[in-house]
Amino acid sequence: MSSSPISDNQLANKSQAWSALFSEPMSDLVKRYTASVFFDKRLWAADIAGSLAHAEMLQAQGILSAEDHAAIERGMAQIKSEIEAGSFEWKLDLEDVHLNIEARLTELVGVAGKRLHTGRSRNDQVATDVRLWLRGEIDELSLLLNALQTALVEVAEKNAEVILPGFTHLQVAQPVSFGHHLLAYVEMFARDSERLADVRRRVNRLPLGAAALAGTSYPLDRERVARTLGMVDDKGVACVCQNSLDAVSDRDFAIEFTAAASLVMVHVSRLSEELILWMSQAFSFIDLADRFCTGSSIMPQKKNPDVPELARGKTGRVVGHLMGLITLMKGQPLAYNKDNQEDKEPLFDTVDTLKDTLRIFAEMAGGITVKPEAMERAALKGYATATDLADYLVKKGLAFRDAHEIVAHAVKTAIQAGVDLSQLPLSELQKFDARIGEDVFEGLSLRGSLEARNILGGTAPAQVRAQVARHRARLAQA
Amino acid sequence: MSSSPISDNQLANKSQAWSALFSEPMSDLVKRYTASVFFDKRLWAADIAGSLAHAEMLQAQGILSAEDHAAIERGMAQIKSEIEAGSFEWKLDLEDVHLNIEARLTELVGVAGKRLHTGRSRNDQVATDVRLWLRGEIDELSLLLNALQTALVEVAEKNAEVILPGFTHLQVAQPVSFGHHLLAYVEMFARDSERLADVRRRVNRLPLGAAALAGTSYPLDRERVARTLGMVDDKGVACVCQNSLDAVSDRDFAIEFTAAASLVMVHVSRLSEELILWMSQAFSFIDLADRFCTGSSIMPQKKNPDVPELARGKTGRVVGHLMGLITLMKGQPLAYNKDNQEDKEPLFDTVDTLKDTLRIFAEMAGGITVKPEAMERAALKGYATATDLADYLVKKGLAFRDAHEIVAHAVKTAIQAGVDLSQLPLSELQKFDARIGEDVFEGLSLRGSLEARNILGGTAPAQVRAQVARHRARLAQA
Amino acid sequence: MSSSPISDNQLANKSQAWSALFSEPMSDLVKRYTASVFFDKRLWAADIAGSLAHAEMLQAQGILSAEDHAAIERGMAQIKSEIEAGSFEWKLDLEDVHLNIEARLTELVGVAGKRLHTGRSRNDQVATDVRLWLRGEIDELSLLLNALQTALVEVAEKNAEVILPGFTHLQVAQPVSFGHHLLAYVEMFARDSERLADVRRRVNRLPLGAAALAGTSYPLDRERVARTLGMVDDKGVACVCQNSLDAVSDRDFAIEFTAAASLVMVHVSRLSEELILWMSQAFSFIDLADRFCTGSSIMPQKKNPDVPELARGKTGRVVGHLMGLITLMKGQPLAYNKDNQEDKEPLFDTVDTLKDTLRIFAEMAGGITVKPEAMERAALKGYATATDLADYLVKKGLAFRDAHEIVAHAVKTAIQAGVDLSQLPLSELQKFDARIGEDVFEGLSLRGSLEARNILGGTAPAQVRAQVARHRARLAQA
Amino acid sequence: MSSSPISDNQLANKSQAWSALFSEPMSDLVKRYTASVFFDKRLWAADIAGSLAHAEMLQAQGILSAEDHAAIERGMAQIKSEIEAGSFEWKLDLEDVHLNIEARLTELVGVAGKRLHTGRSRNDQVATDVRLWLRGEIDELSLLLNALQTALVEVAEKNAEVILPGFTHLQVAQPVSFGHHLLAYVEMFARDSERLADVRRRVNRLPLGAAALAGTSYPLDRERVARTLGMVDDKGVACVCQNSLDAVSDRDFAIEFTAAASLVMVHVSRLSEELILWMSQAFSFIDLADRFCTGSSIMPQKKNPDVPELARGKTGRVVGHLMGLITLMKGQPLAYNKDNQEDKEPLFDTVDTLKDTLRIFAEMAGGITVKPEAMERAALKGYATATDLADYLVKKGLAFRDAHEIVAHAVKTAIQAGVDLSQLPLSELQKFDARIGEDVFEGLSLRGSLEARNILGGTAPAQVRAQVARHRARLAQA
Repeated sequence: MSSSPISDNQLANKSQAWSALFSEPMSDLVKRYTASVFFDKRLWAADIAGSLAHAEMLQAQGILSAEDHAAIERGMAQIKSEIEAGSFEWKLDLEDVHLNIEARLTELVGVAGKRLHTGRSRNDQVATDVRLWLRGEIDELSLLLNALQTALVEVAEKNAEVILPGFTHLQVAQPVSFGHHLLAYVEMFARDSERLADVRRRVNRLPLGAAALAGTSYPLDRERVARTLGMVDDKGVACVCQNSLDAVSDRDFAIEFTAAASLVMVHVSRLSEELILWMSQAFSFIDLADRFCTGSSIMPQKKNPDVPELARGKTGRVVGHLMGLITLMKGQPLAYNKDNQEDKEPLFDTVDTLKDTLRIFAEMAGGITVKPEAMERAALKGYATATDLADYLVKKGLAFRDAHEIVAHAVKTAIQAGVDLSQLPLSELQKFDARIGEDVFEGLSLRGSLEARNILGGTAPAQVRAQVARHRARLAQA
Repeated sequence: MSSSPISDNQLANKSQAWSALFSEPMSDLVKRYTASVFFDKRLWAADIAGSLAHAEMLQAQGILSAEDHAAIERGMAQIKSEIEAGSFEWKLDLEDVHLNIEARLTELVGVAGKRLHTGRSRNDQVATDVRLWLRGEIDELSLLLNALQTALVEVAEKNAEVILPGFTHLQVAQPVSFGHHLLAYVEMFARDSERLADVRRRVNRLPLGAAALAGTSYPLDRERVARTLGMVDDKGVACVCQNSLDAVSDRDFAIEFTAAASLVMVHVSRLSEELILWMSQAFSFIDLADRFCTGSSIMPQKKNPDVPELARGKTGRVVGHLMGLITLMKGQPLAYNKDNQEDKEPLFDTVDTLKDTLRIFAEMAGGITVKPEAMERAALKGYATATDLADYLVKKGLAFRDAHEIVAHAVKTAIQAGVDLSQLPLSELQKFDARIGEDVFEGLSLRGSLEARNILGGTAPAQVRAQVARHRARLAQA
Repeated sequence: MSSSPISDNQLANKSQAWSALFSEPMSDLVKRYTASVFFDKRLWAADIAGSLAHAEMLQAQGILSAEDHAAIERGMAQIKSEIEAGSFEWKLDLEDVHLNIEARLTELVGVAGKRLHTGRSRNDQVATDVRLWLRGEIDELSLLLNALQTALVEVAEKNAEVILPGFTHLQVAQPVSFGHHLLAYVEMFARDSERLADVRRRVNRLPLGAAALAGTSYPLDRERVARTLGMVDDKGVACVCQNSLDAVSDRDFAIEFTAAASLVMVHVSRLSEELILWMSQAFSFIDLADRFCTGSSIMPQKKNPDVPELARGKTGRVVGHLMGLITLMKGQPLAYNKDNQEDKEPLFDTVDTLKDTLRIFAEMAGGITVKPEAMERAALKGYATATDLADYLVKKGLAFRDAHEIVAHAVKTAIQAGVDLSQLPLSELQKFDARIGEDVFEGLSLRGSLEARNILGGTAPAQVRAQVARHRARLAQA
Repeated sequence: MSSSPISDNQLANKSQAWSALFSEPMSDLVKRYTASVFFDKRLWAADIAGSLAHAEMLQAQGILSAEDHAAIERGMAQIKSEIEAGSFEWKLDLEDVHLNIEARLTELVGVAGKRLHTGRSRNDQVATDVRLWLRGEIDELSLLLNALQTALVEVAEKNAEVILPGFTHLQVAQPVSFGHHLLAYVEMFARDSERLADVRRRVNRLPLGAAALAGTSYPLDRERVARTLGMVDDKGVACVCQNSLDAVSDRDFAIEFTAAASLVMVHVSRLSEELILWMSQAFSFIDLADRFCTGSSIMPQKKNPDVPELARGKTGRVVGHLMGLITLMKGQPLAYNKDNQEDKEPLFDTVDTLKDTLRIFAEMAGGITVKPEAMERAALKGYATATDLADYLVKKGLAFRDAHEIVAHAVKTAIQAGVDLSQLPLSELQKFDARIGEDVFEGLSLRGSLEARNILGGTAPAQVRAQVARHRARLAQA
């Protein structure tokens, strides 16, 4: 048999036919439909890192010669600099980031390049690339989450004594410290960090060596590759996917990451909702710096809180990606199916959205102007200290349920009189229960109410400062 | 007051501050986060069409002079040719497609350009643009759906007589015509067309004139604009959004469209699942043309049905967009909020995905090689004519439930003997019921069973041809 | 062969084995896992109606004797009264509503009952039942949507002249009529009605006659059954599913209905969000009647808007059902698969949620106490008439863009002075533009601004009344 | 003021008005709409446990007398036995599980019952209840996941040597061990266990003490309560929610749990898809025991794999709940809103679905009949050892890419000749490359190919047995 079609670089002929087995080239429409190179080229650094670790191991195991290994290293260094310089030519015909890089390598270093794919398949290669890339992004996201927490802790500390009406059902409930309120979000973002750390453990496992689906007949040292790539656990043990079929078909980590990301965005959306409410004329609790706002093309007086609105809207985008990824994987038989290529764009967009959003919120937190008078004025509106009156009565010996009912009567009277509870004269209050004394008024003030909640997790400024200290210590360690 | 900042083009100063009201420019991060121009420039043609219809009406109503109107038309013509030529410079500072075009118009034609925005706001403008654009896309999608139906009808007609095992629960159930099977998908895509037509009616309504949210004090003729833009119903009545608050905040049409698109993709995913099954070695019912397949980087014998796999995967993407859009709108107070800007990318990507997928499936349908022998062989495996035996017994006087139970016994005997029902000797069959005669064997053949289902909607080839004729007539009208 | 197991009622033996083909009974766990009777018994009336129409046709076609037909009618009448009286015994062993009713029928009328299932299968039977049931529910929902619209129109009419600050980005934008604001929701619910009518057309088609998947060999008259069941289009043409495979596997209508229901809930969630905001102490625009609120177990002063909060939350439930149904159908091969049984609970819960929610909202609308002074006071806060000043300047000859910038300066001055635009003296205003005259103040009042927007769809009270009249006429027709 | 309404049990009067503040009772429709008792009564055991821990601490802190504490314990013991006996009367008027139990307690033990609610609110109470309940369910689910893994490991071990065609793209790829294939699912379910353990850590934290939202003025010892309820970490440190606002409004744990549950169901759906494929006549790789199957009402020969089909369908249900919960929380302002009540039904149904599904799958795994001959026959169809030929050539000195292309030619020749690669004569093979020798045939056999993949995670039977041993050890520890 004539060797001519064979001695050529197979990848160089892909525009004519996929391989000798195919009688016609892919249609242009199909090429465009199935190619991933225009989005997965983002994985180039991970792809090269994975290939280098694979080549190093192939040589260590005697599968690759030292010369070939050196050639591959040289070629990859050049490819890296070409990509960084923007001079690398990405080709649609070569489908994806893997074949583009491999074809260029062979162009640069000849037969050594053709030997790189020994004992691996694109199936385990792409799974490795995505995991390496995502691990790096999780590390960046953790830093951004910390920066946001730090910014919020800062504002919380400054506002430990500022009184805000705490709401339940958006009705005035009890006075709370504005600092305390912001620290609720720090708790949320701290949980997000925990979750990302959990996801990272499951991302940081090596599929390489699973080959197409069944493992390979070459004596690869998978644990060596894992160690080279930093895929080790807390105790330094190499983390290797233990079943080849699972290794190439598992996309749990993508779903798990996107679920964690959705929770981050749910938290962002809640904070955004509050920032928007607080900046409305009805509340007027805060102002956002002009650089985070835009105006209106028609209404000259407008200054709109675009950033929190948009962030609230972007929650939908990330949740949509989560739904898309689950739909993608549902009911797929083993092992790798082309459907899985659709995992990348949602993952990429989720990461981009989160990074931008966290960065901008950390910056914006510092640009919040707090209006303590407006907050305190609002806290005076809704009988926020009614619970304190009930608690007062309990301390005088009533059962809580009875005290609750007595106070409901008192509030009704105050509403009809158009005054606050603290404005009812003692004699009036005593009509509800004779045990009420002069000392009642202390607890009926906003500050008295606030200070009284001096319990672990409560809103008393002392507790707020304790929370601040705890977060500071935690964030310093991270 | 110095008039200098005023006499300039306000939009030209946006890089310094949003308007005179703002004390600092937007931060670069915020600009990038909130700008939409890099995706919404796709709306340029709709934006220009809407502006021209608005300007024409302003002149007709005496709000704009003939000279200004002429200047605007001239400027827009130039902008159109610049965009088509790729020479238009899109600026991030100008946020979106609307301000980019308006700023360029003012550059080109001066004060007339500044007058265009009279009586409108970006809120009603963007809603109009998206509706105009989506209407055009729906029209294209309808053509593509028709093309796919036509291609399937073609293959169905050729295969009206080809026998396939019909499955329920993926177990062999009854013999069906392969043509009949494909026509089930034509029904689905025909319903998709119906739904898109319903959506189109609700898309084709004019928000313009709602201005920011409350209408405007200029005497606009909204129905004139609607007519200019082709927003009329079957009877030629102008379709105008009847409430200004609703006009600027409604995104129902985006959700409704994406829901209809999700159903298209659900149908595509079902067809894809079957194509993949049928092309597997286990079934071997069909082959897809090489140009729709790819190979493996490691396994030289592979020819993979990439297109249907990827299409099945892309269902997730579209469903994700639906989920994202609903999440986006849930709980938003009236009227326009910045969140709504997030409606565009999912909508754009949904349209792109659908168009590519429908186009490629219409092309692929013609490239299916049918293997009738393999299909028929498979139909012989699972006692597909057992129901026919039960029906035979009913015609001999048994109640259906009793016949069902008798045939279960007969199938059990045949399984134990390792033969088909039609291979049991008459004497053996008569042990189950003495009324069974020689004529039973006719109904036990695959073709006999097929021909027997000659009822409206049934699988008999005559019915298949009737369906084909009906679809042909329908598609010819469309 | 001994006829003993056959002459019995097969269904009566299901607890021993599914049919003669099965060697062991279903495990109890499996029975519970796969049975649907405890939720699908809700379909009983549709099931009986479908069976009666089928039996009537069987007799008309000579497949069933008049005696058998009469027996079936008699038996079904009894079953109906047993179910209505609560004395019907639903059995888990009989899996679903269909087999429960059929088994009881055979108990009551003997062999005639066994003949009912001639020419049909549970696959086409359940599809018919669900469609009949859903059609009835859609009709009820349409009435409820109309009742809600009517209630809102009522309140809108009463409040046509009440001025509310219209918001964009939750910032005060322009004054709007509270009636106008409510009518935005009437538009939304009117679109919901349109959509339900579109869905109804696709629900109201007959699958019966498709049998298991391929049609049947009995000479059924499917169009007769369709007419009996009222499945006819506007022109009285019978609506019959035209492809048997599609007929038994199609669940588009369930997804389409749930998508339409999700939009209803999105609208409800937006209205709820506003009711909650408006009832907060910060806004104090409205009060909800006590009977729609609850208190707090701890805070005696609380009156919480539970109903709109819960309704907002229930949006998630319905959207979840939509996502569940799409996930269910994605990638299913034809024809019927057991997965489809999972279509019912989400559909049932969606209908229940919608009916309860619409009913309660129609009732609650009448219980809204409007606080016009608070609304008007709020409208004075955010320079709501700035656009009117810009429009005034345009009428004096400025281009809109220049007017916009001038007004931004004026607003900045007013903010610094702590006054409204209308409170700036004329001389001050004239510093921004000399053309400003005494007549400017008319447009700067809230009412002047409101009245000025007297354009189709605008917020002027005259327009609000025109909208009310149009809705009244439309709702009267429905 | 008359004390009469006060000295009564307030809760006993709820049917007349919520509290003294309310002028009318809730409408019946509203009661039904807002009440949760008919689903949240499932939390009764957690509610009582939480109350007992609270009361114990109240006494230890001197807030409650020993007599009251004893009375509460006595009352709760009685309530517990009433509920277990089914004699407890759940009342709609009392809204939820908490008020029902508290009201009954007060009925039973008088004023001591009214004192129980001191220092807590339903907001922190319900959050505590749900967490306690969910923690218990997670523990049960972990056991069920282990049982399923154990069952699969059992079958895998028995089938370590059974050869199955491994698929990618559902095309025959390479031979794999059936045991190896099943162990891929063990990996998935093991990851599910890991994830549930991570979720459990975040579930197992105490909200109690947060009261309504701000903490309380009573000197509660929250860490004592946490320890009583077993809410401690690995090191025995009490786990207490550190911010009261976050404590009552956080539902992350519900979303995170449902996301983990969705992944379990995605895995179940993939396994189900394969069981259904394998049981189809086209594959015939396995048979499921009759007790997991049902028949058809019309087709007497059918035995359908209902359980895996239904499980695949139930994936949609759980994913729907996840989407519902995220939609629920998106954009909610702090702190508790009534929307949150909607967290329960999806959570309950998710737990029920998972428990039933895992239990039934563990049972079903043992009921799988494996058909090794059919599997091996199928593995011979698709040139499954082509990669082995390429690897052979690499060992003879070719670069992998060149070897890949040569084998593509060889496969093409074999397809045209209608034979397997191993059936081509040596002379024919040598035409493709002269280096091919007699030893090539060893690697071209299925078993040779299988044995060759003797690498960590590979499919060689030795590796399968190593995996089995590792899983056994792990599961024994759990």
